[in-house]
Amino acid sequence: MDKLIEAIIAKDYNPTVAGLDPKLDYVPEFILKKHLGADDPFAGAAEALFEFNKTLIDCLYDIVPAVKPQSAYYEMYGIEGLKCLKRTMDYAQSKGMYVILDVKRGDIGATAEAYSRAYIGKTDIGGKAVRAFGPDGITVNPYLGTDGLKPFVKDAEENDKTVFVLVKTSNPSSGELQDLVVDGERIYEKTAALVRGLGETSVGAHGYSNIGAVVGATYPEQLKELREKMPNTFFLVPGYGAQGGRAEDVALAFDKNRLGAIVNSSRGIMCAYKKGDWRPEQFGEAARAEAVRMRDDILSHVK
Amino acid sequence: MDKLIEAIIAKDYNPTVAGLDPKLDYVPEFILKKHLGADDPFAGAAEALFEFNKTLIDCLYDIVPAVKPQSAYYEMYGIEGLKCLKRTMDYAQSKGMYVILDVKRGDIGATAEAYSRAYIGKTDIGGKAVRAFGPDGITVNPYLGTDGLKPFVKDAEENDKTVFVLVKTSNPSSGELQDLVVDGERIYEKTAALVRGLGETSVGAHGYSNIGAVVGATYPEQLKELREKMPNTFFLVPGYGAQGGRAEDVALAFDKNRLGAIVNSSRGIMCAYKKGDWRPEQFGEAARAEAVRMRDDILSHVK
Repeated sequence: MDKLIEAIIAKDYNPTVAGLDPKLDYVPEFILKKHLGADDPFAGAAEALFEFNKTLIDCLYDIVPAVKPQSAYYEMYGIEGLKCLKRTMDYAQSKGMYVILDVKRGDIGATAEAYSRAYIGKTDIGGKAVRAFGPDGITVNPYLGTDGLKPFVKDAEENDKTVFVLVKTSNPSSGELQDLVVDGERIYEKTAALVRGLGETSVGAHGYSNIGAVVGATYPEQLKELREKMPNTFFLVPGYGAQGGRAEDVALAFDKNRLGAIVNSSRGIMCAYKKGDWRPEQFGEAARAEAVRMRDDILSHVK
Repeated sequence: MDKLIEAIIAKDYNPTVAGLDPKLDYVPEFILKKHLGADDPFAGAAEALFEFNKTLIDCLYDIVPAVKPQSAYYEMYGIEGLKCLKRTMDYAQSKGMYVILDVKRGDIGATAEAYSRAYIGKTDIGGKAVRAFGPDGITVNPYLGTDGLKPFVKDAEENDKTVFVLVKTSNPSSGELQDLVVDGERIYEKTAALVRGLGETSVGAHGYSNIGAVVGATYPEQLKELREKMPNTFFLVPGYGAQGGRAEDVALAFDKNRLGAIVNSSRGIMCAYKKGDWRPEQFGEAARAEAVRMRDDILSHVK
């Protein structure tokens, strides 16, 4: 986690991760026109998305430490979409950004191992170890318990990568399972204890382990409670902005050194040009302005 | 779910789904030799896996109703692996097999919608609706609650596809979250109630809804209990064979019409040639013999 934290510090403690969840609806018309209408609709869509992503990265990389592509928005464009995902991740890393791939994988032991190899480990092919996709960190789902999480923990330690386990998600119905009470403790607290345990052996120079937690900005009380209970766990916080989380809510995820969390904004940054007086061609500048506004908004509330 | 059930009936009530989770370790040497050593190791691996899968499908399609590729084992070979996944699914469907893609996706509403479009719905590109991947059914993870499941339910209804929600998984630590007791009811029972509710509007001619459940063969008591509590829910049962589930265990998942469940075997079928007197070239025949043995084993215990 030190690598991510150092990227945050290097960008003046900017705790923003730009979510790259591009739908074609978000991409300005002038880019769509260039690429759609190709013989293979997926190839055209993927080119449009990559051009959109590339400009966003170019306009953000010197002030925003990380990007978080959401795999679903690439998988929906098939093989071409996945090629675009890989190109986007490679490009962001070439610009020095930390890449967290939001895949929320989770499976039984042997299969979790395959997923882990795909994203944060290496695949063995005829005695050669190769990387299929190379993000710096990923998100994972804990429904299958520890044996589904351990392969990710192992690969994170061995390859200097990070894993963010879903603890309390930002969506309205997250409580249906996550908030159920067992022996006076909620399920997300049980998950939190599990995550804390898995990270104990990898606490780095800044006091945080390689095993992080996803905790939504839309549940500030839980965010505050979990920050206290998980002092060595770095948080990935979705739900700021479009989903309703405010700066004073996400501020609860931080420690006294202005560290401890990275806050995602997807639509807010990608579609910034649709608000105010921007021309579509200025979508990158608009994204940058929103990223600055968001940084200042959050940091002004962090004590 | 009728389409799957009719495929099962057409294959003499064979309740087997062949899990296609190919690791290179499973592929016979004579196939590996042909393909590995290519300039792009991923392309070579993907060719080897496809040849392996194709022969398995050729040897199984007239007696086994369905295949279940596990996405992780393709994602670990990158873009080339995913191309192999798509080719495998297309090929199995061209042979009349029902394809359940084991992806265990789960996310918040808008993202679940994107995943759903990727696999069982359609992606809109410039006003054209296209299919990114085209399996007949998929598995999904319920940790995020109903709003993460509803997009899949909607697409299943609109596109005549099926969704299997993880209820009680087959792995040793599945109980860590799934067996916790809330108000006298275990989490997996809560999930079961949720799944039952989501399927109520899509019960087909054979009495089963489009929304199925994943229930592991390794927990026979729970399998029996859930069969009683979920009379309209079709089960996808992993864990038979290599993981320890026996025919008398999985038999509990069936109804009095010898329907109600499809039982997965991956390693047992794919690696059948490694047991007994088979030559490596006979891996397809060995898989077929094992699929016959498994069918007879299970059906002999179904009342």
